Amino acid sequence: MKLYTYFRSSAAFRVRIALHLKGLDYTAVPVHLTRDGGAQHGPDYRAVNPAALVPALVDGELTLTQSLAIIEYLDETCPSPPLLPPDPPGRARVRAIALSIACEIHPLNNLRVLDYLTGQLGLDEAQRMAWYRHWVEGGLAAVEALLAAHPATGRFCHGDTPGLADCVLVPQVFNARRFDCRLDHVPTVTRIAAACEALDAFARAAPAAQPDAE
Amino acid sequence: MKLYTYFRSSAAFRVRIALHLKGLDYTAVPVHLTRDGGAQHGPDYRAVNPAALVPALVDGELTLTQSLAIIEYLDETCPSPPLLPPDPPGRARVRAIALSIACEIHPLNNLRVLDYLTGQLGLDEAQRMAWYRHWVEGGLAAVEALLAAHPATGRFCHGDTPGLADCVLVPQVFNARRFDCRLDHVPTVTRIAAACEALDAFARAAPAAQPDAE
Repeated sequence: MKLYTYFRSSAAFRVRIALHLKGLDYTAVPVHLTRDGGAQHGPDYRAVNPAALVPALVDGELTLTQSLAIIEYLDETCPSPPLLPPDPPGRARVRAIALSIACEIHPLNNLRVLDYLTGQLGLDEAQRMAWYRHWVEGGLAAVEALLAAHPATGRFCHGDTPGLADCVLVPQVFNARRFDCRLDHVPTVTRIAAACEALDAFARAAPAAQPDAE
Repeated sequence: MKLYTYFRSSAAFRVRIALHLKGLDYTAVPVHLTRDGGAQHGPDYRAVNPAALVPALVDGELTLTQSLAIIEYLDETCPSPPLLPPDPPGRARVRAIALSIACEIHPLNNLRVLDYLTGQLGLDEAQRMAWYRHWVEGGLAAVEALLAAHPATGRFCHGDTPGLADCVLVPQVFNARRFDCRLDHVPTVTRIAAACEALDAFARAAPAAQPDAE
């Protein structure tokens, strides 16, 4: 398999974690999102993913996009170890945690949105950072509410083995730290992120461990 | 089952479509998102969903949140008619189309984001609408690229029966029309939306057909 990736992309980071948790070999093809206006907008990458977003995973003849769809595909085609629990209520819970980050936090803070704020809207750095922190800090509080005191929360988001929700949580916490967001109001989130980061699969997927890290 | 819903919420609209496609009975519990600062922020609704977002689906003892997680749960627990194809590549494609809307378009244009733009950032109506149209028009172009000329696209997003991707596409097209977004560049999107809207399940799920419609 071939993964089009960028070391700092949260969505690519999610898929890298899933690949490492499953012990799947892949070749990383770096796509530099910021140099020279962004390689994702060039014709080479648009031929892979017309949406100009990373990651994309190529598995034989198939090109897959959207990190959560890719992880579900990996879980269906390489079921061991599973990244979703077997029971529908558990699966719904894990997906809801993942989507609470993937739909409610990350889309507001990705590169093209931040570029719109400072470009088209002419916001200054302080306004841009206030926007960033507003959605991360509020969004993680909602995730904390899903995790704290829920009987299914264990060492990880759902039980004592890492899964889809953890693949999405850790990159978001990484970004929150990178941009100095408050995290003292989300102790379960940070406790689970620390448990994940102690695992080899998460360490190998981390931005600093990537071949294109700067 | 009990669905906490708001007639104009896209995410609730998605779940209503899925429930009607599967022929499942439910009781609608309206949550008014704009009156008096928004009933979703009140203690009654926060006891249902601490994230203060609709929809939430209550099935017996279980409360489910996040529209895509709810639809996957319905598909797992009430498999007929299926809303996802049986093959992993097809499932990945359908999920990628759904996520291209749910992660790349809708989060940028929901109520709380628009409120931040006009509130905290003090944008005027023209800037707010330019933002709205920018993400809808560009985002739907990316969806069009996933659909147009793909051999698996049929009468609907994936083949000739409606599924998860259609549940997400139709509410987004509804919003695009409501806010006068350009749609002439996405002929496959509008052709599929029209095919969906001709079906009873979609008509019954539409905002105007809801008990709380205004």
